[in-house]
Amino acid sequence: MALAFGLFIAPFANSANAQEKKPMIRIARIVVDSVRLTEYRAALKEGIETAVRLEPGVLTLYAVYDRERPTHITVFEIYADEAAYKLHIQTPHFLKYKETVKDMVKSLELVDAVPIGLESKH
Amino acid sequence: MALAFGLFIAPFANSANAQEKKPMIRIARIVVDSVRLTEYRAALKEGIETAVRLEPGVLTLYAVYDRERPTHITVFEIYADEAAYKLHIQTPHFLKYKETVKDMVKSLELVDAVPIGLESKH
Repeated sequence: MALAFGLFIAPFANSANAQEKKPMIRIARIVVDSVRLTEYRAALKEGIETAVRLEPGVLTLYAVYDRERPTHITVFEIYADEAAYKLHIQTPHFLKYKETVKDMVKSLELVDAVPIGLESKH
Repeated sequence: MALAFGLFIAPFANSANAQEKKPMIRIARIVVDSVRLTEYRAALKEGIETAVRLEPGVLTLYAVYDRERPTHITVFEIYADEAAYKLHIQTPHFLKYKETVKDMVKSLELVDAVPIGLESKH
């Protein structure tokens, strides 16, 4: 991968695609089997905690459920760039999450998003 | 509640409702008139920057649009508690935003959300 090769001399130095250096924002909308909600939430929580702790390019993973429809999950995701996202989906913790929840997820919609403003106290 | 009792001599001591002390999370889904997108984005950006800068209880306002459907806006919102949200919607900058965009917004859905995990590098 370009990122791995780029790190050989200097981070991002020879990336061919300028787009890969931009933050990547995604909104995941997930509907979960209602009888497996507790298990699903535990798997998701573990997955996002591990990703933000271990992966330098995983900047933010905010996972919530709708109060009125607890089976409806939203994850607001910010990666340092597209390469960081591509690394993320190959990590053991992500693959473990996907395997754990594969029979719990009824639908999954991934929306690529563009920032208007990302304002936070943190 | 044990927590409320512990806070008897601390700020928020006289709040009657323990729920108001919990972070409040909301997802706003907004559809905007396509011919007024640029104006709308500028008004939203100014509104969220001002709110996070001036209001202690407005913790996070992440505003994005769908890359494939630029008229579809999502704002991921975290307030310190419900009281902070109630203050927010009375501020001059919020009221100015609402007045500015009132003829640009085609639909608005507000979803109350409950955290599963809020992980961030920041």
